[in-house]
Amino acid sequence: MKPRSIFFTTLLLSLTLVFAGCSNNSTPAASPAGQPAANTPSAVQSVASNGADPLPSWNDGPAKQAILEFVKTTTDKGSPRFVPPEDRIATFDQDGTTWVEQPIYSQVLFAFDRVAEMAPQHPEWKTKMPFKAILTGDREAMAKFTLKDIEVIAMATHTGMTAEAFGPLVKDWMAKAKHPKFDKPYPQMVYQPMLEVMKYLRDNGYRTYIVTGGGQDFVRSYALPVYGIPPEQIIGSALDTQYAYNKDGQGILMRDPKLLLNNNGAGKAEDIYLFIGKHPKAAFGNTDGDREMLEYTQASGGASLEMLVLHDDATREYAYGPAQGLPDTKVGTFPQSLYDEAKAKGWTVISMKNDWKRIFGWEK
Amino acid sequence: MKPRSIFFTTLLLSLTLVFAGCSNNSTPAASPAGQPAANTPSAVQSVASNGADPLPSWNDGPAKQAILEFVKTTTDKGSPRFVPPEDRIATFDQDGTTWVEQPIYSQVLFAFDRVAEMAPQHPEWKTKMPFKAILTGDREAMAKFTLKDIEVIAMATHTGMTAEAFGPLVKDWMAKAKHPKFDKPYPQMVYQPMLEVMKYLRDNGYRTYIVTGGGQDFVRSYALPVYGIPPEQIIGSALDTQYAYNKDGQGILMRDPKLLLNNNGAGKAEDIYLFIGKHPKAAFGNTDGDREMLEYTQASGGASLEMLVLHDDATREYAYGPAQGLPDTKVGTFPQSLYDEAKAKGWTVISMKNDWKRIFGWEK
Repeated sequence: MKPRSIFFTTLLLSLTLVFAGCSNNSTPAASPAGQPAANTPSAVQSVASNGADPLPSWNDGPAKQAILEFVKTTTDKGSPRFVPPEDRIATFDQDGTTWVEQPIYSQVLFAFDRVAEMAPQHPEWKTKMPFKAILTGDREAMAKFTLKDIEVIAMATHTGMTAEAFGPLVKDWMAKAKHPKFDKPYPQMVYQPMLEVMKYLRDNGYRTYIVTGGGQDFVRSYALPVYGIPPEQIIGSALDTQYAYNKDGQGILMRDPKLLLNNNGAGKAEDIYLFIGKHPKAAFGNTDGDREMLEYTQASGGASLEMLVLHDDATREYAYGPAQGLPDTKVGTFPQSLYDEAKAKGWTVISMKNDWKRIFGWEK
Repeated sequence: MKPRSIFFTTLLLSLTLVFAGCSNNSTPAASPAGQPAANTPSAVQSVASNGADPLPSWNDGPAKQAILEFVKTTTDKGSPRFVPPEDRIATFDQDGTTWVEQPIYSQVLFAFDRVAEMAPQHPEWKTKMPFKAILTGDREAMAKFTLKDIEVIAMATHTGMTAEAFGPLVKDWMAKAKHPKFDKPYPQMVYQPMLEVMKYLRDNGYRTYIVTGGGQDFVRSYALPVYGIPPEQIIGSALDTQYAYNKDGQGILMRDPKLLLNNNGAGKAEDIYLFIGKHPKAAFGNTDGDREMLEYTQASGGASLEMLVLHDDATREYAYGPAQGLPDTKVGTFPQSLYDEAKAKGWTVISMKNDWKRIFGWEK
């Protein structure tokens, strides 16, 4: 579980970049990602046994084929790569893998909105950094935020309340906040092809988990309606809680300003083992922070499926890497080294541009 | 998750007591625990809807009645205390609740046997404390073990290997080690009435969890065959793991000599929230270390079931408290304060002597 970095280091490091105005993620991609073009004829049978296509938002191609073949192989009792039901575990990163992470992680916007909402109860924030910068929209000051500033914002907005009180705050925010580019609430920022993969896996006996660098309780508050995934199948960065008694003498848990699990990079493999006690058989990610999760999945032995989403579609979503010459970013970095590892190890890189027929459920 | 005490403090503290020879747990109990006598006429209907008794190893009485009524009430859609399936969570402490914990926790014996087994690879242990004391059976020296000695033993026997390598060691031990009093392998030291409750709850849509102060990976290695509970539903004290690469470049997890979760007392409530994200609706324990788990269960609101096993049967198992004048013990302490809290809050105390028709599955 090392390093025990401060809360949301990964999640919030991007702030300075974004507010310094050097995010260039909405510029068009220089080129597609070297994936086969959509509609390339292939050997894949893109229909399920009942005749319906379980992945209608996917174009025929190697990514769709890899998913269909993996499910077929691992659920066929006669197959040497059959996986017994108790071992059918599939893990999904969230930001950039199952929903939009640009121009900045949704949880960061939630934290900023919380600062604005909490400000009346904190008159001192008007003149106190880092809150003052947020409340006055001072982008220059925000661009200079230190890690300590970021930790202060995260802790002020995420702790000092009971465990029960936090979820409703997130739910309220999710219902009203809209994505700055698409002008839709965040539950509609989910990738339709990934919802289809989740359902297809579940229909074939897989348990689907979200394994996110974001806050565990943040994601748990909406994952059931948004992904069909219950709280106990959400593994994320987690704060410590402190057992206490309320005025009625009832046991309560207070959210403590201390990071217990930093669920990113190696932490994802470690926390999967902590929560599930075994290797996943399938894993989906999109950044350097998912590398160890995919490696640990492949180390399970036997059949496994490792997939990485490459954001190479500046027209329909965003384009960023810097793998394959795509624009660089600090929000959801997909380095060339990860791309090379994927190619060397037989992982599948999903080209958003070529592999996804549609990206969002609300697209016609 | 506080206090962050050393690994197995709770589990191993008892060593000095046991080896100082001051354990008096197998002396007959001074008196029963003030529970209603077995076979007391009661209003309980001890048959399931299909006519079969789901709890045949339980005598009719308030404990059996509490279980039957709880299940009936919470699974009847017309009941104001109906619990939707996704919230049906039942948590069970292990040592002293679902299997025998006297004269000492099984995991302690496992650690000692590991020392003996590992000794050939550690010739220096012959002359090095605390190992020397174990290898020579020096009870006087063992009685003087410090917490540091105990930590050294636990870490030497439980770490320095991959996550995958640990489980088979436990499985091997479980297959051959026998209980000193009953001369049976540990999988047969499970309480038959509790297996029946677990099955009855599962048959009614409850997910059963073990929530133990013992090692999470220790229990995970046998919980499926012994309790019918899969690894992801075992929450226990947990060591940190460290992601690394083996010589083939595969991702592995090394067991690290550092305690990540101290799953006892308040830690049980905190870790239940960490793993499941919600309150249990039913909880079973037998010691002070289960107090907060039961409180947190009751704090869920609506229907809930809280039960504590009182070991008041020196003839068939052991008798210890010190609640209700039973002999005192450092292994699985049930203090009078816990008994009083149970009575005040409407929790059910299970009298092993009066409520259990048979204790082990192998009894005729």
